[in-house]
Amino acid sequence: MFRDRQMSSSATSRVAVIGLGSMGYGMATSLRRAGFEVTGCDVTADAVARFVADGGKGAKSPAEAARDADIVVSVVVNAAQTEAILFGKDGVAETLAKDAVFISSATMDPDIARRLAKQLEATGRHYLDAPISGGAQRAAQGELTILASGGAAAFAKARPALDAMAAKLYELGDAAGQGAAFKMINQLLAGVHIAAASEAIAFAAKQGLDIRKVYEVITASAGNSWMFENRMPHVLDGDYAPRSAVEIFVKDLGIIQDMARNARFPVPVSAAALQMFLMTAAAGMGRDDDASVARMYAQVTGTKLPGDK
Amino acid sequence: MFRDRQMSSSATSRVAVIGLGSMGYGMATSLRRAGFEVTGCDVTADAVARFVADGGKGAKSPAEAARDADIVVSVVVNAAQTEAILFGKDGVAETLAKDAVFISSATMDPDIARRLAKQLEATGRHYLDAPISGGAQRAAQGELTILASGGAAAFAKARPALDAMAAKLYELGDAAGQGAAFKMINQLLAGVHIAAASEAIAFAAKQGLDIRKVYEVITASAGNSWMFENRMPHVLDGDYAPRSAVEIFVKDLGIIQDMARNARFPVPVSAAALQMFLMTAAAGMGRDDDASVARMYAQVTGTKLPGDK
Repeated sequence: MFRDRQMSSSATSRVAVIGLGSMGYGMATSLRRAGFEVTGCDVTADAVARFVADGGKGAKSPAEAARDADIVVSVVVNAAQTEAILFGKDGVAETLAKDAVFISSATMDPDIARRLAKQLEATGRHYLDAPISGGAQRAAQGELTILASGGAAAFAKARPALDAMAAKLYELGDAAGQGAAFKMINQLLAGVHIAAASEAIAFAAKQGLDIRKVYEVITASAGNSWMFENRMPHVLDGDYAPRSAVEIFVKDLGIIQDMARNARFPVPVSAAALQMFLMTAAAGMGRDDDASVARMYAQVTGTKLPGDK
Repeated sequence: MFRDRQMSSSATSRVAVIGLGSMGYGMATSLRRAGFEVTGCDVTADAVARFVADGGKGAKSPAEAARDADIVVSVVVNAAQTEAILFGKDGVAETLAKDAVFISSATMDPDIARRLAKQLEATGRHYLDAPISGGAQRAAQGELTILASGGAAAFAKARPALDAMAAKLYELGDAAGQGAAFKMINQLLAGVHIAAASEAIAFAAKQGLDIRKVYEVITASAGNSWMFENRMPHVLDGDYAPRSAVEIFVKDLGIIQDMARNARFPVPVSAAALQMFLMTAAAGMGRDDDASVARMYAQVTGTKLPGDK
């Protein structure tokens, strides 16, 4: 089901990385470390300049970055940005070689992933649906988890780059959309767990419990989740500098609602969780760390949490 | 914060265990193994007969079991049963020695735990608020987690029995109610996580994903929870024989709603989860395994899960 990372056998391939944010920069760095010739591109000129100063190559547009590339790795936030990179003005579809592969890592509705793949494949290029998870540090170490699906040719073309970026590569199906669907199931759970952790820890504080003891007890008990364990230290420290922002789950739980409504499948638990992220964004914390949902509960209810003035 | 189990230094103490269900029977067995003289009592005569056949002593009522006991361990489902065992007809308060300790393990509203403690302490006995977690197997092995709070005298009296029953003993405060409050926070999270896991896996099945692959991916990803990992195998196997029943979370998330409403603290995520347990109970699965929430989602939406005819 997954492959250990291995040295690439096509270390001279040329890769374009579109999007040099915290994830994309680390992925581009991992690709360079594995021996690829990497051209970076970003809407922020500073990010490109930094990448060039580190020894990479820079490009002014996706089209320019993709010229002569065998592999394009797209590391942007959503479906709209992915579509613009592919088919917008100065998009990669203008220049990308026939038989090259476009690796899309944005989290999106599986239906849109299928549509983008179909549209690109009609032009003779390959599309790999490959959402990522693992955070900036693991991106920089080449130790992401990648949830990939696509045709055999797309996998074959992409594999050396995937091996350079991922510690775990799940191969989840032979068409675009499957990777996206697995990622959305993960995001449903992750979002609910952050909202539940926030509800629980703020309610515990309201009852006068020592929330450091709550953290100790819960992480050793059946109520634990990966997100409780990972995010609640931000609440204990009163530190809401964004590692991952509230707006990410406004987006991802929103996609879940759209998918579920289209499928006539009720998802009331994740619908409630989405409202809590929305309420947190509405209170002005959309760009803060997603553990800010706990701060929103505390503010609404007049409950004191660490870091309050 | 917690003590490793150690051999009791008062191995000749007499303990009454009220409630010989799957948890109580195991706890009574662990106490006997540690050298206590244990008298068991249960509303089901068969359970008492089995305990006597195993070498324990039996009693016909809580009052009879508690006569001459130094420690009473109450292992029943809720606050109402606990109150009946304490103060009802043939309750332990009729016979229990002055200075003995009553260890209450039922999950209940902290306000009720405080009231019962106050009422018993007024008669010269000690009350230890000591909810448990860990399941039947760990009960039988003397490896429960116990979330305890109470006065110093209650802890001193109870400690040999706690050491015999628990692998982890959390000492969470010097008055009844704190243990109950920590347990309720755990139950809030546990209940939401079961409902979210059920929503996610049924939605994944609806999208045509291989739910065994979903299990493999999620348990290695940020969407994981203790409950997802523990309960979803029941869905994969189509096996809803009750390890823990839907009705337990109807009760526990109901207590959360009562506590939160009294505290004027909104808990929308756990409120949504409670509705899913209620819906599952309404569909006739209240006594089935709590992973039946996934079956409810599947039935409502016409989604096929393993084990369906």
